[in-house]
Amino acid sequence: MSYIILFGGSSFEHEISIVSAITLKEKLAGERVEFIFLDKDREFYQISPDQMKSRYFASGAYKKGRRVEMGRGGFYQVGFLGNKKKVPGKVVINLIHGRDGEDGKIPGMLSFYRIKAITPPVEGCAISYNKVLTKYYASGVGVKVVDWKIAQGEEPPFPLPVIIKPARLGSSIGVSVAKTPEEYRYGLDVAREFDPLVIVEPFIEGVEEFNLAGCWVNDQKEEGEWLFSRVEPVKKREFLDYNQKYLDFSRRETQVAPVDPQLETRLKEAFKKIYGTSFRGALIRCDFFRINGEIYLNEINPIPGSLANYLFEDFPGTLRRLAQSLQLEREIEIDYRYINQIQQAKGK
Amino acid sequence: MSYIILFGGSSFEHEISIVSAITLKEKLAGERVEFIFLDKDREFYQISPDQMKSRYFASGAYKKGRRVEMGRGGFYQVGFLGNKKKVPGKVVINLIHGRDGEDGKIPGMLSFYRIKAITPPVEGCAISYNKVLTKYYASGVGVKVVDWKIAQGEEPPFPLPVIIKPARLGSSIGVSVAKTPEEYRYGLDVAREFDPLVIVEPFIEGVEEFNLAGCWVNDQKEEGEWLFSRVEPVKKREFLDYNQKYLDFSRRETQVAPVDPQLETRLKEAFKKIYGTSFRGALIRCDFFRINGEIYLNEINPIPGSLANYLFEDFPGTLRRLAQSLQLEREIEIDYRYINQIQQAKGK
Repeated sequence: MSYIILFGGSSFEHEISIVSAITLKEKLAGERVEFIFLDKDREFYQISPDQMKSRYFASGAYKKGRRVEMGRGGFYQVGFLGNKKKVPGKVVINLIHGRDGEDGKIPGMLSFYRIKAITPPVEGCAISYNKVLTKYYASGVGVKVVDWKIAQGEEPPFPLPVIIKPARLGSSIGVSVAKTPEEYRYGLDVAREFDPLVIVEPFIEGVEEFNLAGCWVNDQKEEGEWLFSRVEPVKKREFLDYNQKYLDFSRRETQVAPVDPQLETRLKEAFKKIYGTSFRGALIRCDFFRINGEIYLNEINPIPGSLANYLFEDFPGTLRRLAQSLQLEREIEIDYRYINQIQQAKGK
Repeated sequence: MSYIILFGGSSFEHEISIVSAITLKEKLAGERVEFIFLDKDREFYQISPDQMKSRYFASGAYKKGRRVEMGRGGFYQVGFLGNKKKVPGKVVINLIHGRDGEDGKIPGMLSFYRIKAITPPVEGCAISYNKVLTKYYASGVGVKVVDWKIAQGEEPPFPLPVIIKPARLGSSIGVSVAKTPEEYRYGLDVAREFDPLVIVEPFIEGVEEFNLAGCWVNDQKEEGEWLFSRVEPVKKREFLDYNQKYLDFSRRETQVAPVDPQLETRLKEAFKKIYGTSFRGALIRCDFFRINGEIYLNEINPIPGSLANYLFEDFPGTLRRLAQSLQLEREIEIDYRYINQIQQAKGK
């Protein structure tokens, strides 16, 4: 399989996307991969593999590189006289975390231009990007969510401590834990800087957290097949390091301890409900809580850092099967039957 | 205000979008308006106002016209040597019904290129385009929906008659009413041609239907203001003309009879809950049912035909105020602080 890794974006997670792409380059060393960078001004640049170093972007040196455009079927280098040359690569990997990549803009454009891509579709983006929609959706498909309210006024809707989250950011910026009314008001102000819509949850100490990544493929059987990563048990949340954890973007290599098979089955069942048909074509990670023996969805990560490669037994193989399953939107035949009928009727 | 009306699209409603744009041209006769047509191959063409006749599109004559491209801040005519000239117009009106326009692709692109537009945002598109999400969302925000189930197997999940709807189409194609088990199986086959996800509802005869259009503006006050159309009471549904009604795209001029003020207030309250922050920037129409005195959401029409202009007392004024309220996404400053810190740490 040959890929184009698309990264960067006008997002608070622009930098982590660069780190993510550099990591994925190593993990896909056996595949043919091209790199396209979306800079902060939303210009696309083709990046030579040997330039895939964070300094190249931070210094602005990439601007001397080759500008490309998204167009029908792929990305194109545009010559002086307007002649176009396609960037090779069968499947785009959307690795733009946060805004642009996870809010549906880039997925919409890829679909518009009929480009095959490993990406959450527009629908999945909307569901995961807005934490309020995530709650409605998870409840709808039958997966429990932690109790929550939309912030109104200045009073916390639950006994303190609580977690305050801007609804739409696709990252954990603006998220805080409030232990006192003063902290609550301050946290609310911070969150509202990012989104007028802010949600509040009770903060539950010592909750167990489990991450599970996966995707649905139908390269071999019509009814499809689920490919799952190992379950990652996350260290118990401590009150003090909560912000730190949430701001720790650089998902590290992990030694994954095996979990109880019954728990694993239940996590997979919850994952399937969430993924449904809304995330087809994506490799996503669902972060779950276990509270009093019950499974709760914490959040959907529709483009996890470096695609959570470290959780998979065979990451390149998983990605290849997903890539082979991708389908373009059906073509719609437009024959102007309706207008022609009216024209004929008028002619009578 | 100066507008660019964007219409057409790779959609089953391509033709109605043309009719819709021609109607809107008349309704906005006092404004400066440009026209951009998205053809079935997803190429953009600038259309001269005097060519805005349905025959011009049906005959393919538009292809001799001027190709344009969407780019940063607007649409551009591209000259022989790659020089670009911007199509004038402050605000784009997304009038692409169905796919492309209502599924989030075009809204995402407009937002990506920082183009001000009267359009449902990506999030609102996802909610309204997938009828399952509409159900979850409406229930979430506290608006009743007609009972429904996802179709499984070949047996109807409710006593017949039922309505069968493909979940994602953004139009009424593939929708049918089944009175017999044979009709159910046939209807299911038809619906599944369009989407593997199909929903089924009990068919309630003689239900009262009310349409209400509106938008939220904040051109004058920070807290914003709701602008509503008159309520349109729809003729009672008859069993036999259901398909016909649903396939009748050409929304006609309507004599709107006044409705009970208490009902109007309740419809407006339900509308506000649905519109929320998910449809900001859009002029939408919500179609409600009244069953045993209770209000139910039937569907959200995020780009109603000709923007439901016939329902408004002052349509051009409403549109102008909405246009003046539009805001571009905030700019995100990217300073490479994170990468620079790592570089510094490495240098030590």
